[in-house]
Amino acid sequence: MVQDIVFVTGNANKLKEVQMLLSGSDINLSNEPLDLDELQDTDLQKIAVAKCQQAVQVLGAGKPVFVEDTALTFQEFNGLPGAYIKWFLKSMGLEKIVQMLDNFPNKSAQAITTIAYADSEGKIHVFEGITDGKIVPARGPTAFGWDPIFEPLESHGQTYAEMTKEDKNVISHRGRAFAKFNQFLSGN
Amino acid sequence: MVQDIVFVTGNANKLKEVQMLLSGSDINLSNEPLDLDELQDTDLQKIAVAKCQQAVQVLGAGKPVFVEDTALTFQEFNGLPGAYIKWFLKSMGLEKIVQMLDNFPNKSAQAITTIAYADSEGKIHVFEGITDGKIVPARGPTAFGWDPIFEPLESHGQTYAEMTKEDKNVISHRGRAFAKFNQFLSGN
Repeated sequence: MVQDIVFVTGNANKLKEVQMLLSGSDINLSNEPLDLDELQDTDLQKIAVAKCQQAVQVLGAGKPVFVEDTALTFQEFNGLPGAYIKWFLKSMGLEKIVQMLDNFPNKSAQAITTIAYADSEGKIHVFEGITDGKIVPARGPTAFGWDPIFEPLESHGQTYAEMTKEDKNVISHRGRAFAKFNQFLSGN
Repeated sequence: MVQDIVFVTGNANKLKEVQMLLSGSDINLSNEPLDLDELQDTDLQKIAVAKCQQAVQVLGAGKPVFVEDTALTFQEFNGLPGAYIKWFLKSMGLEKIVQMLDNFPNKSAQAITTIAYADSEGKIHVFEGITDGKIVPARGPTAFGWDPIFEPLESHGQTYAEMTKEDKNVISHRGRAFAKFNQFLSGN
Protein backbone atom coordinates (compact mmCIF):
# COMPACT_ATOMS: atom_id res chain seq x y z
CA MET A 1 0.00 0.00 0.00
CA VAL A 2 1.34 3.41 -0.91
CA GLN A 3 1.78 5.65 2.14
CA ASP A 4 1.52 9.45 2.06
CA ILE A 5 4.35 10.95 4.07
CA VAL A 6 5.39 14.57 4.47
CA PHE A 7 9.08 15.52 4.62
CA VAL A 8 9.61 18.86 6.29
CA THR A 9 12.67 20.64 4.93
CA GLY A 10 13.47 23.94 3.33
CA ASN A 11 16.69 22.58 1.84
CA ALA A 12 16.26 21.75 -1.87
CA ASN A 13 19.45 19.63 -1.98
CA LYS A 14 18.33 17.49 0.96
CA LEU A 15 14.91 17.05 -0.61
CA LYS A 16 16.46 15.85 -3.87
CA GLU A 17 18.75 13.39 -2.05
CA VAL A 18 15.90 12.04 0.08
CA GLN A 19 13.61 11.65 -2.95
CA MET A 20 16.35 9.55 -4.51
CA LEU A 21 16.89 7.51 -1.33
CA LEU A 22 13.19 6.70 -0.99
CA SER A 23 12.52 6.24 -4.73
CA GLY A 24 12.33 2.43 -4.54
CA SER A 25 9.76 2.41 -1.73
CA ASP A 26 5.96 2.51 -1.55
CA ILE A 27 5.95 6.07 -0.32
CA ASN A 28 4.21 9.04 -1.80
CA LEU A 29 6.55 11.77 -0.58
CA SER A 30 5.41 15.36 -0.35
CA ASN A 31 7.39 18.33 0.95
CA GLU A 32 6.58 21.15 3.36
CA PRO A 33 9.30 23.81 3.43
CA LEU A 34 8.51 24.92 7.01
CA ASP A 35 11.09 26.87 8.95
CA LEU A 36 11.14 24.99 12.26
CA ASP A 37 12.97 25.95 15.44
CA GLU A 38 15.89 23.81 16.49
CA LEU A 39 17.03 23.34 20.06
CA GLN A 40 20.55 23.93 21.26
CA ASP A 41 21.85 20.54 22.30
CA THR A 42 24.62 18.04 21.74
CA ASP A 43 22.01 15.24 21.89
CA LEU A 44 21.09 14.87 18.21
CA GLN A 45 18.05 12.68 18.85
CA LYS A 46 16.61 15.26 21.26
CA ILE A 47 16.95 17.97 18.59
CA ALA A 48 15.27 15.81 15.91
CA VAL A 49 12.41 14.71 18.17
CA ALA A 50 11.66 18.29 19.27
CA LYS A 51 11.66 19.41 15.63
CA CYS A 52 9.32 16.56 14.66
CA GLN A 53 6.93 17.42 17.50
CA GLN A 54 6.86 20.99 16.25
CA ALA A 55 6.13 19.79 12.69
CA VAL A 56 3.18 17.74 14.00
CA GLN A 57 1.91 20.78 15.86
CA VAL A 58 2.10 22.97 12.76
CA LEU A 59 0.73 20.44 10.24
CA GLY A 60 -1.87 18.89 12.54
CA ALA A 61 -1.95 15.40 14.06
CA GLY A 62 -2.76 12.25 12.08
CA LYS A 63 -0.51 13.05 9.13
CA PRO A 64 2.70 10.97 8.97
CA VAL A 65 5.61 13.39 8.87
CA PHE A 66 9.37 13.29 9.27
CA VAL A 67 12.24 15.66 9.69
CA GLU A 68 15.94 14.99 9.48
CA ASP A 69 18.86 16.74 11.02
CA THR A 70 22.46 16.34 10.04
CA ALA A 71 25.48 16.82 12.23
CA LEU A 72 29.21 16.81 11.73
CA THR A 73 31.06 15.84 14.88
CA PHE A 74 34.82 16.29 15.34
CA GLN A 75 36.44 13.74 17.63
CA GLU A 76 38.86 16.36 19.00
CA PHE A 77 35.91 18.62 19.82
CA ASN A 78 34.13 15.80 21.66
CA GLY A 79 31.14 15.88 19.31
CA LEU A 80 31.04 19.53 18.30
CA PRO A 81 30.26 21.41 16.07
CA GLY A 82 27.61 18.66 15.84
CA ALA A 83 24.23 20.03 14.85
CA TYR A 84 25.68 23.56 14.88
CA ILE A 85 27.75 22.77 11.76
CA LYS A 86 25.18 24.53 9.54
CA TRP A 87 25.72 27.79 11.45
CA PHE A 88 29.49 27.44 11.16
CA LEU A 89 29.17 26.78 7.45
CA LYS A 90 26.99 29.84 7.00
CA SER A 91 29.09 32.15 9.18
CA MET A 92 32.64 31.02 8.41
CA GLY A 93 32.65 28.96 5.25
CA LEU A 94 34.48 25.72 4.52
CA GLU A 95 38.03 27.03 4.57
CA LYS A 96 37.86 28.39 8.11
CA ILE A 97 36.15 25.25 9.40
CA VAL A 98 39.17 23.27 8.17
CA GLN A 99 41.51 25.90 9.63
CA MET A 100 39.88 25.53 13.09
CA LEU A 101 41.30 22.01 13.12
CA ASP A 102 44.75 22.99 11.80
CA ASN A 103 46.44 22.68 15.17
CA PHE A 104 44.80 19.36 16.08
CA PRO A 105 46.53 16.33 14.54
CA ASN A 106 43.36 14.25 14.93
CA LYS A 107 41.02 15.10 12.04
CA SER A 108 38.53 12.26 12.71
CA ALA A 109 34.91 13.17 12.24
CA GLN A 110 31.52 11.52 11.99
CA ALA A 111 28.70 12.53 9.68
CA ILE A 112 25.40 11.72 11.35
CA THR A 113 21.84 11.92 10.08
CA THR A 114 19.01 11.62 12.56
CA ILE A 115 15.48 11.09 11.24
CA ALA A 116 12.49 11.63 13.53
CA TYR A 117 9.25 10.25 12.11
CA ALA A 118 5.79 10.80 13.62
CA ASP A 119 3.39 8.09 12.45
CA SER A 120 -0.34 8.64 11.93
CA GLU A 121 -0.90 8.04 15.65
CA GLY A 122 1.68 10.64 16.58
CA LYS A 123 4.19 8.11 17.88
CA ILE A 124 7.75 9.19 17.16
CA HIS A 125 10.38 6.83 15.79
CA VAL A 126 14.06 7.74 15.43
CA PHE A 127 16.55 6.41 12.87
CA GLU A 128 20.23 7.25 12.78
CA GLY A 129 22.89 6.80 10.14
CA ILE A 130 26.60 7.32 10.84
CA THR A 131 29.58 7.52 8.51
CA ASP A 132 33.13 7.72 9.83
CA GLY A 133 35.66 9.89 8.09
CA LYS A 134 38.02 12.83 8.42
CA ILE A 135 38.10 16.55 7.72
CA VAL A 136 40.27 17.56 4.75
CA PRO A 137 40.87 20.76 2.76
CA ALA A 138 37.96 21.22 0.35
CA ARG A 139 37.96 19.10 -2.83
CA GLY A 140 35.19 18.69 -5.39
CA PRO A 141 32.08 20.72 -6.26
CA THR A 142 30.86 23.01 -3.48
CA ALA A 143 27.14 22.70 -4.23
CA PHE A 144 26.10 20.75 -1.11
CA GLY A 145 27.10 21.97 2.35
CA TRP A 146 30.26 20.53 3.83
CA ASP A 147 30.52 17.61 1.35
CA PRO A 148 33.88 18.92 -0.03
CA ILE A 149 35.66 18.73 3.36
CA PHE A 150 34.43 15.32 4.53
CA GLU A 151 36.33 12.25 3.35
CA PRO A 152 34.61 9.02 4.43
CA LEU A 153 36.88 6.12 5.45
CA GLU A 154 35.10 3.88 2.94
CA SER A 155 35.46 6.18 -0.08
CA HIS A 156 39.06 5.27 -0.99
CA GLY A 157 40.26 8.85 -0.76
CA GLN A 158 37.35 10.76 -2.26
CA THR A 159 35.41 13.47 -0.44
CA TYR A 160 31.62 13.25 -0.47
CA ALA A 161 31.67 16.03 -3.06
CA GLU A 162 33.96 14.05 -5.38
CA MET A 163 31.75 10.94 -5.32
CA THR A 164 28.85 10.26 -7.67
CA LYS A 165 25.45 10.62 -5.98
CA GLU A 166 24.89 6.87 -6.39
CA ASP A 167 28.21 5.94 -4.74
CA LYS A 168 27.68 8.48 -1.98
CA ASN A 169 24.21 7.19 -1.11
CA VAL A 170 25.57 3.66 -0.51
CA ILE A 171 27.95 4.73 2.30
CA SER A 172 26.57 8.08 3.40
CA HIS A 173 25.13 8.93 6.83
CA ARG A 174 21.93 10.02 5.11
CA GLY A 175 21.80 6.87 2.97
CA ARG A 176 22.19 4.69 6.06
CA ALA A 177 19.56 6.51 8.09
CA PHE A 178 17.07 6.30 5.21
CA ALA A 179 17.83 2.61 4.64
CA LYS A 180 16.71 1.99 8.24
CA PHE A 181 13.68 4.23 7.81
CA ASN A 182 12.73 2.46 4.57
CA GLN A 183 13.04 -0.94 6.22
CA PHE A 184 10.81 0.21 9.07
CA LEU A 185 8.18 1.57 6.66
CA SER A 186 8.14 -1.63 4.54
CA GLY A 187 7.65 -3.69 7.69
CA ASN A 188 4.54 -1.74 8.68
CA MET B 1 8.54 51.03 45.32
CA VAL B 2 10.21 47.66 45.65
CA GLN B 3 9.48 45.41 42.67
CA ASP B 4 9.38 41.62 42.84
CA ILE B 5 11.24 40.19 39.87
CA VAL B 6 12.14 36.59 39.08
CA PHE B 7 15.50 35.73 37.50
CA VAL B 8 15.42 32.39 35.75
CA THR B 9 18.81 30.71 35.79
CA GLY B 10 20.24 27.42 36.95
CA ASN B 11 23.75 28.88 37.08
CA ALA B 12 24.78 29.71 40.66
CA ASN B 13 27.71 31.91 39.54
CA LYS B 14 25.50 34.01 37.27
CA LEU B 15 22.94 34.36 40.04
CA LYS B 16 25.60 35.63 42.45
CA GLU B 17 26.94 38.11 39.90
CA VAL B 18 23.46 39.39 39.04
CA GLN B 19 22.51 39.74 42.72
CA MET B 20 25.60 41.92 43.11
CA LEU B 21 24.79 43.95 39.98
CA LEU B 22 21.23 44.67 41.11
CA SER B 23 22.06 45.12 44.80
CA GLY B 24 21.72 48.91 44.72
CA SER B 25 18.27 48.87 43.13
CA ASP B 26 14.72 48.67 44.45
CA ILE B 27 14.30 45.11 43.31
CA ASN B 28 13.35 42.12 45.35
CA LEU B 29 15.09 39.45 43.30
CA SER B 30 14.06 35.82 43.52
CA ASN B 31 15.44 32.90 41.53
CA GLU B 32 13.81 30.06 39.62
CA PRO B 33 16.37 27.47 38.48
CA LEU B 34 14.28 26.32 35.49
CA ASP B 35 15.95 24.41 32.70
CA LEU B 36 14.66 26.26 29.64
CA ASP B 37 15.13 25.32 26.00
CA GLU B 38 17.35 27.52 23.91
CA LEU B 39 17.00 28.02 20.17
CA GLN B 40 19.79 27.49 17.71
CA ASP B 41 20.51 30.90 16.25
CA THR B 42 23.21 33.48 15.70
CA ASP B 43 20.69 36.21 16.58
CA LEU B 44 21.26 36.57 20.34
CA GLN B 45 18.15 38.68 20.92
CA LYS B 46 15.97 36.05 19.26
CA ILE B 47 17.37 33.38 21.59
CA ALA B 48 16.83 35.50 24.71
CA VAL B 49 13.28 36.54 23.73
CA ALA B 50 12.25 32.93 23.00
CA LYS B 51 13.69 31.83 26.35
CA CYS B 52 11.85 34.62 28.16
CA GLN B 53 8.56 33.69 26.47
CA GLN B 54 9.07 30.13 27.63
CA ALA B 55 9.76 31.33 31.20
CA VAL B 56 6.48 33.31 31.15
CA GLN B 57 4.66 30.22 29.90
CA VAL B 58 6.09 28.06 32.69
CA LEU B 59 5.74 30.56 35.55
CA GLY B 60 2.43 32.04 34.44
CA ALA B 61 1.68 35.51 33.10
CA GLY B 62 1.61 38.63 35.25
CA LYS B 63 4.85 37.94 37.08
CA PRO B 64 7.82 40.09 36.00
CA VAL B 65 10.59 37.75 34.95
CA PHE B 66 13.90 37.96 33.12
CA VAL B 67 16.44 35.64 31.60
CA GLU B 68 19.91 36.41 30.37
CA ASP B 69 22.03 34.71 27.81
CA THR B 70 25.72 35.20 27.33
CA ALA B 71 27.67 34.77 24.13
CA LEU B 72 31.30 34.87 23.14
CA THR B 73 31.76 35.87 19.52
CA PHE B 74 35.05 35.51 17.63
CA GLN B 75 35.60 38.10 14.91
CA GLU B 76 37.35 35.51 12.70
CA PHE B 77 34.37 33.19 13.08
CA ASN B 78 31.95 35.96 12.09
CA GLY B 79 30.12 35.81 15.41
CA LEU B 80 30.51 32.16 16.36
CA PRO B 81 30.69 30.27 18.71
CA GLY B 82 28.28 32.97 19.97
CA ALA B 83 25.57 31.52 22.20
CA TYR B 84 26.99 28.03 21.59
CA ILE B 85 30.09 28.89 23.66
CA LYS B 86 28.62 27.08 26.70
CA TRP B 87 28.46 23.83 24.71
CA PHE B 88 32.04 24.26 23.52
CA LEU B 89 33.18 24.93 27.06
CA LYS B 90 31.41 21.82 28.32
CA SER B 91 32.54 19.55 25.48
CA MET B 92 36.08 20.77 24.81
CA GLY B 93 37.28 22.83 27.72
CA LEU B 94 39.17 26.15 27.70
CA GLU B 95 42.45 24.91 26.26
CA LYS B 96 40.95 23.53 23.06
CA ILE B 97 38.79 26.62 22.55
CA VAL B 98 42.00 28.68 22.52
CA GLN B 99 43.65 26.09 20.25
CA MET B 100 40.79 26.40 17.71
CA LEU B 101 42.01 29.96 17.14
CA ASP B 102 45.73 29.06 17.01
CA ASN B 103 45.96 29.40 13.26
CA PHE B 104 44.02 32.67 13.07
CA PRO B 105 46.15 35.75 13.81
CA ASN B 106 43.04 37.76 14.70
CA LYS B 107 42.02 36.87 18.27
CA SER B 108 39.40 39.64 18.62
CA ALA B 109 36.26 38.65 20.48
CA GLN B 110 33.20 40.21 22.02
CA ALA B 111 31.52 39.15 25.24
CA ILE B 112 27.80 39.86 24.99
CA THR B 113 25.03 39.59 27.54
CA THR B 114 21.45 39.80 26.35
CA ILE B 115 18.70 40.26 28.93
CA ALA B 116 15.08 39.64 28.00
CA TYR B 117 12.61 40.95 30.55
CA ALA B 118 8.86 40.30 30.51
CA ASP B 119 7.04 42.95 32.53
CA SER B 120 3.81 42.33 34.46
CA GLU B 121 1.82 42.87 31.26
CA GLY B 122 3.92 40.32 29.39
CA LYS B 123 5.64 42.92 27.23
CA ILE B 124 9.24 41.93 26.51
CA HIS B 125 12.14 44.37 26.74
CA VAL B 126 15.68 43.56 25.65
CA PHE B 127 18.94 44.96 27.03
CA GLU B 128 22.37 44.22 25.69
CA GLY B 129 25.86 44.73 27.10
CA ILE B 130 29.00 44.30 25.02
CA THR B 131 32.66 44.19 25.99
CA ASP B 132 35.43 44.07 23.40
CA GLY B 133 38.49 41.97 24.01
CA LYS B 134 40.60 39.10 22.77
CA ILE B 135 41.03 35.38 23.39
CA VAL B 136 44.20 34.45 25.26
CA PRO B 137 45.61 31.27 26.85
CA ALA B 138 43.88 30.75 30.21
CA ARG B 139 45.07 32.89 33.14
CA GLY B 140 43.49 33.22 36.58
CA PRO B 141 41.01 31.12 38.58
CA THR B 142 38.87 28.79 36.48
CA ALA B 143 35.74 29.00 38.60
CA PHE B 144 33.51 30.92 36.15
CA GLY B 145 33.12 29.72 32.58
CA TRP B 146 35.42 31.24 29.99
CA ASP B 147 36.56 34.17 32.19
CA PRO B 148 40.22 32.95 32.15
CA ILE B 149 40.54 33.16 28.33
CA PHE B 150 38.86 36.55 27.74
CA GLU B 151 41.00 39.65 28.13
CA PRO B 152 38.92 42.84 27.80
CA LEU B 153 40.54 45.78 26.00
CA GLU B 154 39.82 48.00 29.00
CA SER B 155 41.38 45.72 31.63
CA HIS B 156 45.03 46.71 31.08
CA GLY B 157 46.15 43.16 30.40
CA GLN B 158 44.08 41.20 32.88
CA THR B 159 41.66 38.44 31.95
CA TYR B 160 38.17 38.56 33.45
CA ALA B 161 39.29 35.78 35.80
CA GLU B 162 42.24 37.85 37.06
CA MET B 163 40.11 40.90 37.87
CA THR B 164 38.32 41.52 41.16
CA LYS B 165 34.56 41.07 40.92
CA GLU B 166 34.10 44.80 41.53
CA ASP B 167 36.50 45.81 38.74
CA LYS B 168 35.00 43.25 36.38
CA ASN B 169 31.44 44.45 36.94
CA VAL B 170 32.36 47.99 35.86
CA ILE B 171 33.48 46.98 32.37
CA SER B 172 31.88 43.59 31.87
CA HIS B 173 29.25 42.69 29.26
CA ARG B 174 26.99 41.53 32.09
CA GLY B 175 27.62 44.69 34.13
CA ARG B 176 26.74 46.85 31.13
CA ALA B 177 23.57 44.96 30.28
CA PHE B 178 22.38 45.12 33.89
CA ALA B 179 23.22 48.84 34.14
CA LYS B 180 20.78 49.41 31.25
CA PHE B 181 18.21 47.10 32.82
CA ASN B 182 18.54 48.88 36.17
CA GLN B 183 18.10 52.26 34.56
CA PHE B 184 14.98 51.02 32.79
CA LEU B 185 13.52 49.64 36.03
CA SER B 186 14.22 52.83 37.99
CA GLY B 187 12.51 54.89 35.32
CA ASN B 188 9.29 52.89 35.58
